Amino acid sequence: MGDRQDGDPPLFYDFHVFACVNRRPDGHSRGSCAARGSEKLRDYMKARAKELGVPNVRINGAACLDRCELGPCVVVYPEGVWYRVDSTDAVDRLLQAHLVDRGRASELLLPP
Amino acid sequence: MGDRQDGDPPLFYDFHVFACVNRRPDGHSRGSCAARGSEKLRDYMKARAKELGVPNVRINGAACLDRCELGPCVVVYPEGVWYRVDSTDAVDRLLQAHLVDRGRASELLLPP
Repeated sequence: MGDRQDGDPPLFYDFHVFACVNRRPDGHSRGSCAARGSEKLRDYMKARAKELGVPNVRINGAACLDRCELGPCVVVYPEGVWYRVDSTDAVDRLLQAHLVDRGRASELLLPP
Repeated sequence: MGDRQDGDPPLFYDFHVFACVNRRPDGHSRGSCAARGSEKLRDYMKARAKELGVPNVRINGAACLDRCELGPCVVVYPEGVWYRVDSTDAVDRLLQAHLVDRGRASELLLPP
């Protein structure tokens, strides 16, 4: 895996959160995060993160993260922790537990 | 910043590479990565990473990473190392130096 190395520039974002907003056609066997509402949830997450005032966070839309069946998927880097975020309530719990309290929203974690 | 914690699931991807494919209207003061050709470069990167056979890598399109002026931008996680990748040659150098040789493509690094 990729570890940080001597001489690497400092991290640009303390928390870089990627929310999948990939959309597949209705009826596709894998489904897609956007078909499960991820675009609105990304927008809500952006707004809420800003309101919470957590510094140096980026909420980022992403193309397919390839864990579609478990979505709507979110991954937080650099720690590489994945969540299923399927409601505004789940967004609130993720932001509070992970970004504010710097722990984990355990009940939302994707299986390994 | 976000560190890995006891009990975190193992990393799902050894290298998770995000290439910005955000497009702004022509003439926008910040420009955009897609206006500088990032969509084709992402496609090329996907194909070349597959050809190189590096295991457990994901080349991912991303919405705006917000370092537009320095783009086309790519960030590799979990290490959080950023590159400017503006040609297929740059893609080849990034993949070889970072993913295959597990070092850095120093001449492509974004400034801190």
